[in-house]
Amino acid sequence: MTYIRETIVTTIDKQGTVHIAPLGIIEEGDKWIIAPFRPSKTLENLSAIPYAIANYTDDMLVFAGCLTGRKDWPTVPVKGCQVPRLESALSHSVLKVVAVNDDGRRPQHLCEIVSEETHAPFTGLNRAKAAILELAILVSRLHMLPAEKIDAEIAYLSIAIEKTAGPDEQEAWSWLIARVKDHRDAADAKGKNAVHHEHHHG
Amino acid sequence: MTYIRETIVTTIDKQGTVHIAPLGIIEEGDKWIIAPFRPSKTLENLSAIPYAIANYTDDMLVFAGCLTGRKDWPTVPVKGCQVPRLESALSHSVLKVVAVNDDGRRPQHLCEIVSEETHAPFTGLNRAKAAILELAILVSRLHMLPAEKIDAEIAYLSIAIEKTAGPDEQEAWSWLIARVKDHRDAADAKGKNAVHHEHHHG
Repeated sequence: MTYIRETIVTTIDKQGTVHIAPLGIIEEGDKWIIAPFRPSKTLENLSAIPYAIANYTDDMLVFAGCLTGRKDWPTVPVKGCQVPRLESALSHSVLKVVAVNDDGRRPQHLCEIVSEETHAPFTGLNRAKAAILELAILVSRLHMLPAEKIDAEIAYLSIAIEKTAGPDEQEAWSWLIARVKDHRDAADAKGKNAVHHEHHHG
Repeated sequence: MTYIRETIVTTIDKQGTVHIAPLGIIEEGDKWIIAPFRPSKTLENLSAIPYAIANYTDDMLVFAGCLTGRKDWPTVPVKGCQVPRLESALSHSVLKVVAVNDDGRRPQHLCEIVSEETHAPFTGLNRAKAAILELAILVSRLHMLPAEKIDAEIAYLSIAIEKTAGPDEQEAWSWLIARVKDHRDAADAKGKNAVHHEHHHG
């Protein structure tokens, strides 16, 4: 029973360049754990500047965008913090790293909440947003998953898209679906080369 | 592409008794459609008092509770509106019915937004909450669904519960799972009676 919030984490490097990444943060008492993969820009940034903003948003264009090469989302300054927040955040927490438990693969950064702020109202759950989140997670693990599993999940998740998506959710979904297709086309091309290679030397 | 917000709708009857129901509201330009089933208390109430509050919450105990006989959730008055809101709403819209399109089965109540208010910050998406919403929708349609489909969906959705649920989500999930079990036990009992009956007269 470890509650995980799906957030967009903003961090900066020593030059102040902002990095935006979708990351689940893990509840740990009154603190939160950020566990970025090694290697990753978020991990580098937290080593340089041990502050992060957990941006709480249900704008699925940002989640899907970050996984499909669209990483440039508007940010705005946060008073009293060097790290900016996502402009589209409904609310945010400023997190300060207070301890690091480095397991080699995904160092756990234990963070305390420095401050929190609300920017816009939550407008209700939406099944399509949740489906996009699930597909985004699949897309981040495409190289590890069999094609049949991906097809089955897309078939299931697309029901919620058809029934409850607005234009933004349709677009976020289409970005992820295009990414799945690109991945397959690349795998097919590799497959063909392999066959051709074998044939050539066979 | 009709966006649907999953909300908890509060309405009142002429005596001022509050009714709480989970309902998807459908976007229609700058208005929202509430389409309660016939017969239902929400439908009766909207005929008597044509106002509703769309409560935006991600408290899954309320969604799961309303589907499992736990309908008594705290409400608080809203200034300038006779209908109260859910206490746990992160935000709400006061809706006024401006037209009804009665198709016999699910009369569509076109509503304009009278006012809106924010009460608490959104704290991020959570996969377990989304899974509970999906199971809640299944539970509302148990009588129409084959057991295999329900089993397959529960198996899929339980992954998000195991990975991302906190205590509240675990509890909401357990209420719904108990409801599925009750439904099956009842169906089994009926099945046994039917067999016994046949045997008796066979």
